[in-house]
Amino acid sequence: MTETTTEARAGVGEPLAVVCGGGRFPFAVAQAATRAGRSVTLFPIRGFADPWVEEWPHEWVPLGAFGALSAAIRRAGCRDVVIVGALTRPRLLDIRLDFTTVRLLPRIARLFRGGDDHLLSGVGAIFEEAGFRLRGAHEIAPGILVPEGRLGARAFDEAMAADARLGLAALAALGPYDVGQALVVIGGHVVAVEAAEGTDLMLERVADLRRRGRLKTAPGRGVLVKAPKPGQDRRIDLPSVGPQTVERTAAAGLGGLALEAGGVIAADLQAMIEAADRAGLALAGLAPR
Amino acid sequence: MTETTTEARAGVGEPLAVVCGGGRFPFAVAQAATRAGRSVTLFPIRGFADPWVEEWPHEWVPLGAFGALSAAIRRAGCRDVVIVGALTRPRLLDIRLDFTTVRLLPRIARLFRGGDDHLLSGVGAIFEEAGFRLRGAHEIAPGILVPEGRLGARAFDEAMAADARLGLAALAALGPYDVGQALVVIGGHVVAVEAAEGTDLMLERVADLRRRGRLKTAPGRGVLVKAPKPGQDRRIDLPSVGPQTVERTAAAGLGGLALEAGGVIAADLQAMIEAADRAGLALAGLAPR
Repeated sequence: MTETTTEARAGVGEPLAVVCGGGRFPFAVAQAATRAGRSVTLFPIRGFADPWVEEWPHEWVPLGAFGALSAAIRRAGCRDVVIVGALTRPRLLDIRLDFTTVRLLPRIARLFRGGDDHLLSGVGAIFEEAGFRLRGAHEIAPGILVPEGRLGARAFDEAMAADARLGLAALAALGPYDVGQALVVIGGHVVAVEAAEGTDLMLERVADLRRRGRLKTAPGRGVLVKAPKPGQDRRIDLPSVGPQTVERTAAAGLGGLALEAGGVIAADLQAMIEAADRAGLALAGLAPR
Repeated sequence: MTETTTEARAGVGEPLAVVCGGGRFPFAVAQAATRAGRSVTLFPIRGFADPWVEEWPHEWVPLGAFGALSAAIRRAGCRDVVIVGALTRPRLLDIRLDFTTVRLLPRIARLFRGGDDHLLSGVGAIFEEAGFRLRGAHEIAPGILVPEGRLGARAFDEAMAADARLGLAALAALGPYDVGQALVVIGGHVVAVEAAEGTDLMLERVADLRRRGRLKTAPGRGVLVKAPKPGQDRRIDLPSVGPQTVERTAAAGLGGLALEAGGVIAADLQAMIEAADRAGLALAGLAPR
């Protein structure tokens, strides 16, 4: 965190390019940079970024057109670049409906080697090689990092705290194998592990197992545990959560969310806390193991 | 294996009770015990065991009625008991349609604490406490253990061998967390980890990710990796495979199956090898790490 703050300060005053995927994270980053006195230009990725980006200085870019994108960023006078927002696979389905993007798929495909983080690492490497300074979203907007401690009305009970510890330990054990950033633990049992399917589909699976009577524990117990993969490039792949994560966790019949403090980002923590309180879920930031 | 063989010999001549779940494993065990000169009585579990059990001396028992079952086993003059066959959750759905079994569910539910192995451990403990000697299916029928080496026409290429090593290492890392017994690795990436959903649903998930364009690797690469959880009671919970596993692995677009040699059981290895050859999949038993 100390290093993060220093790095963020180092960029103060310099213009910032925010390459935007979907969701609210690009907004949080752009807002934080503006508040810090930086001029911000958004480069929303067509098919991923949300319409609000047009309220900012922006230039739409297609996914995969790195040459055009880097030229546009240079024209905007930026050297610091943040890549932030959802570039998740479900959106790739939509791309198929778009003929222009279909033509780009072979180039995108080369970056895919299994998980989203590889796409992102690939993109990150391309930017670095082009002479840009890649910044982490959390370096520009440290406020998006989930803080430590209870975050909402409901506290973890002992069983949930134990589930969270087990989950963090299991994620750490999986670290060297580059698996996922989330799992679900109920009553001391890891019932789902995220890999390529992502957190949302994993939570749907838990909801489904419960519907089919294959989880025999009462609802309201167990936790979703999220933590970054050890050793991953935090500038481009911190796990993220939002109110939707809370709703899916509730739909899975769990009791709460255990997020690694300083290792998971939330675009609007307050909205998430409110969603957790509404759903009666416990929400907490846990110190990394 | 040496110990196993000794133990199996120790029981020679003594009558054997085979408590049967679904599938062909109980048959393989009963057959091996008969060949070894033991008298065998089957205790097929209603709703799980298959009709062929009626060709053997048998007594149907409802799941959960341990008092009645142990009395029946004693009447049959058996002290050695094997519990073998599928008691998987999908079948529990069927139970719900059966009024008699619905009444037993509260007792069964107490045994459920997350994974199938807990149900099985619970059952195992109850038998041991009742004074029976619990035998592993593989102790009675060592032929069901997957042997080491290539088991079919197609050999692992280097990439698949590397995927298999990664998978075995990741499963071993997850060992202390009692997660699953299987995962899928493609091109150095763990794309799915089995937990409460079981191997079949995990393979379906991989097939689904591929259908939706979320796996960018060509079909015919990657492996299903199966190994027992370290430290688990092998008498009641060795992971099992069959021709159906091969078919689901093929449907998931993988290149092969990497099974821990001596740690995974196959009721009919020959049928499985044939299925693998038909599907063009590589099938191999790998030495434990």
